[in-house]
Amino acid sequence: MANSNNHRGPQKTHIRRVKILDIEAGKNIAILNDEDANDMSVFISDRISLKYRGKEEIVIVDTSKKLVQKGEIGLYADSAKQLKIRGGETVELVNVPTPKSLEYIRKKMDRKSLSQDEIYSIVEETVQNRLSEGELASFVSAAYINGFGIAETVALAKSMVDTGQSLDLGVHPIADKHCIGGVAGNRTTMIIVPILAAAGVYIPKTSSRAITSASGTADTFEVLAPVVLPIEDLRKVVLKTKGCIAWGGAINLAPVDDKLIRIRNSLHLDPRGLLLASILGKKKAVGAEYLVVDIPIGRGAKVEDENDGKSLANDFLQVSESLQIKTRCLITDGSDPIGFGIGPGLECIEVLAALSPEGSKEKTEMLGGGQEVLEKGTLMAGSILEMVGKAPIGSGAEIAMDLVRKGKAMDKMREIIGAQGGDAKVKISDLPIGKYLYAVKAEKGGRVSHVDNKAVSRIARAAGAPKDKGAGMILHCETGDKIVPGDTLFEIISESETKLSFAIETANALPPVELQKIIIGKVE
Amino acid sequence: MANSNNHRGPQKTHIRRVKILDIEAGKNIAILNDEDANDMSVFISDRISLKYRGKEEIVIVDTSKKLVQKGEIGLYADSAKQLKIRGGETVELVNVPTPKSLEYIRKKMDRKSLSQDEIYSIVEETVQNRLSEGELASFVSAAYINGFGIAETVALAKSMVDTGQSLDLGVHPIADKHCIGGVAGNRTTMIIVPILAAAGVYIPKTSSRAITSASGTADTFEVLAPVVLPIEDLRKVVLKTKGCIAWGGAINLAPVDDKLIRIRNSLHLDPRGLLLASILGKKKAVGAEYLVVDIPIGRGAKVEDENDGKSLANDFLQVSESLQIKTRCLITDGSDPIGFGIGPGLECIEVLAALSPEGSKEKTEMLGGGQEVLEKGTLMAGSILEMVGKAPIGSGAEIAMDLVRKGKAMDKMREIIGAQGGDAKVKISDLPIGKYLYAVKAEKGGRVSHVDNKAVSRIARAAGAPKDKGAGMILHCETGDKIVPGDTLFEIISESETKLSFAIETANALPPVELQKIIIGKVE
Repeated sequence: MANSNNHRGPQKTHIRRVKILDIEAGKNIAILNDEDANDMSVFISDRISLKYRGKEEIVIVDTSKKLVQKGEIGLYADSAKQLKIRGGETVELVNVPTPKSLEYIRKKMDRKSLSQDEIYSIVEETVQNRLSEGELASFVSAAYINGFGIAETVALAKSMVDTGQSLDLGVHPIADKHCIGGVAGNRTTMIIVPILAAAGVYIPKTSSRAITSASGTADTFEVLAPVVLPIEDLRKVVLKTKGCIAWGGAINLAPVDDKLIRIRNSLHLDPRGLLLASILGKKKAVGAEYLVVDIPIGRGAKVEDENDGKSLANDFLQVSESLQIKTRCLITDGSDPIGFGIGPGLECIEVLAALSPEGSKEKTEMLGGGQEVLEKGTLMAGSILEMVGKAPIGSGAEIAMDLVRKGKAMDKMREIIGAQGGDAKVKISDLPIGKYLYAVKAEKGGRVSHVDNKAVSRIARAAGAPKDKGAGMILHCETGDKIVPGDTLFEIISESETKLSFAIETANALPPVELQKIIIGKVE
Repeated sequence: MANSNNHRGPQKTHIRRVKILDIEAGKNIAILNDEDANDMSVFISDRISLKYRGKEEIVIVDTSKKLVQKGEIGLYADSAKQLKIRGGETVELVNVPTPKSLEYIRKKMDRKSLSQDEIYSIVEETVQNRLSEGELASFVSAAYINGFGIAETVALAKSMVDTGQSLDLGVHPIADKHCIGGVAGNRTTMIIVPILAAAGVYIPKTSSRAITSASGTADTFEVLAPVVLPIEDLRKVVLKTKGCIAWGGAINLAPVDDKLIRIRNSLHLDPRGLLLASILGKKKAVGAEYLVVDIPIGRGAKVEDENDGKSLANDFLQVSESLQIKTRCLITDGSDPIGFGIGPGLECIEVLAALSPEGSKEKTEMLGGGQEVLEKGTLMAGSILEMVGKAPIGSGAEIAMDLVRKGKAMDKMREIIGAQGGDAKVKISDLPIGKYLYAVKAEKGGRVSHVDNKAVSRIARAAGAPKDKGAGMILHCETGDKIVPGDTLFEIISESETKLSFAIETANALPPVELQKIIIGKVE
């Protein structure tokens, strides 16, 4: 087949007056009057370049007959905000040439490895919004089908760092943690950050919001303090307290990654190279020198098989070595939710219970007192304390637990909450719990064989989580527990009656608690 | 990795009042007030189902704070038109489940063959707008990388027919022709259709508009008659005249194909299975029993190598056999443009010159009298006359040429033009030619070694084709011609001075005529 066109001959420019339209489309869209569009030979869904005040941005074209007049350009409200363009301003429109990285995407589709420069070009043009959703999806698909080698992965991670914002704290040691996700209630970040910061280790933690889960760390910590921190604020918080828990989406650490993730999510594609570059690029961008990675495995987790978990861990180590990040991977039990509270408010209660020092009045027995998340969190924090030399090998977890028992971790947590703009004196009783409750009781007795992460997430989301901070679930059992008929298996909690009944229906359709069966199958 | 979710639990419905917004986005978009969107737990870019008057359609969600109030749903003008919804109507909104075909797209990515049912499901959900651009791009990419077998291709073609409109003429024989494209000026359809119709062969021809070329057959024939024919009108025209030349885009022969083609174009991906299904599915949908396929090969053509052309031809034969279409593929010379006029108006002049009977007053020597397109067109028409038994083997082209010489083809052409709503008495002198001309002359002498199809298209487009019907180029030379300095190589023709100068710049950047070089390279 003949090659594609990288030249489009000379270009003309067109001056247009901006009109802001109160619509949000989640991507940069400009509306041209259809006669203007014809004159420029651009069509719906084409890309066009906007030049203004020394900047240049690529937008996607929609057209209008009347709403946008000739000589005007309509901008969607979210685009105008992101591009920092005001109504009435004049901008210059220029046709954009075919992105050169399309050739490299084709090359990857043709089973060839990409050079560092070619990967950089794909990342750069993605950041500049020059590639369409379909073109990016083709890149992700090609990386998934044909594989993405370690060298390509390292190049992708470095390109992400180069095209995003970086945090240069100028301090040491800087640590970070990561979990590949998939386990409900797994709020170890909120245990690890205050412990490490209390021990003198810097941990500028950025976390995600929920996509399909009941709550992401950013959604949960937001109950305690604002998590939308511009990078300069984040820097100040970390230099002051040594830690933070911020929403990664508010910082442009790896803008290309947000676009790639959106595409990966819809087809549940996790091409390993893209996954690793995404994670490790962001760690590199915050200056992490030490990293602990949580890889939960087991039934209902993202990785079900232990060998797959180990292979993933090995790739993590190889890529992070090239990026000069000392990394330890922990393969953990991910077959059940961690802890008993699911949903932003309930998870905060559980974390604060876990961090409460011995003998504290705040200590609550609710949600098992937070013991399960505390145990996992201190094991992980201890691992980093050992890596950075703040604890002898083998005693990190104990030292971490000691920082909790003595209240140092809770003090640090309050300091971080305050520094991020939250109420440093927050009490467990202040935290939101929805007032609509429904307890699901066991109809039959038996031993619990499985509590399904996905069903738990689905039910909690139906109840309103993560948007409704007081919504979610309280689990009253875990795998191995013996149940008698009438025992409460779990409670659904909601801020609205409608959402509660929606969540109840969801729980009936997808029961999250499974009891052991004596006869598993039958062959006749 | 764990599996994706195909269940989302129970669903709620929401009643909304429609507000039409004067914006065209080329896909079905609905704007929800952001509070309503929150209540429904839908986000920007999610899909949602609209139910109204017994119909159900899937739309993509944008949000608005003020333009669309709570209780309203904003519809883009083109969506409202396509969905046949009026402002003020009430519609019911329902959350949509995850499309089941995502699983099959994943399966294709995992190098497995898809069954007929799985392919049908992908096609059906694409037609229903349930798949995003990125999801479809992943399917196309997977088909390109992992291949798409003959059985899959046949299943795809059949699914396209099943999900689109079909033409049931109830007559015989029905023939069709197809060209894989890439050659400028290749207007053989306008020669073949009137010849076959005059010979008593039905040819319900649907053609495309230009994407990157200077003019598609539909763009060109539109100079003579309307080409936007609803399927019922097309049926009437064909039953009356035996032929037609309509724009395929106005008929839903294979709605899924338009979406697939859009994605294939951006990355210049032609996964063979998708290409064949797309072409042959549409032929099947119009009831074609006989088909001739033009596969131009050579430098600058879509297929450069003869063996690639033959392999493509073999696949054409295999798939069309399964679809019960008798097919002949012609490998033709595609290294140069066909004919001398490029652009809608000029191509019409050339075709009418070609069809003019011997001794006719209308006969013009302009553009070589249309001899080049006439010769190719009669060879192809003759091929079909032989296949359907209207000409002895070996004499089809001569019989076709005879129908032209005697004026039968021109009479039929006028009958078709009239039946489609054009002026049956149209004269060559009525046809549009832009009044701004620029002749490009040879600076050096020599033999023409190549006239580049892509450069020709680019220049003609810059001059305003295909939108400006009088715009384009006249070629004054072809490969093999001897040129002396000062000879006119080509003329650029435009309807506007600005576009003319834009086209001149394009021609300077991409000179379309190449002279033979004595020294091709130098190694020192």
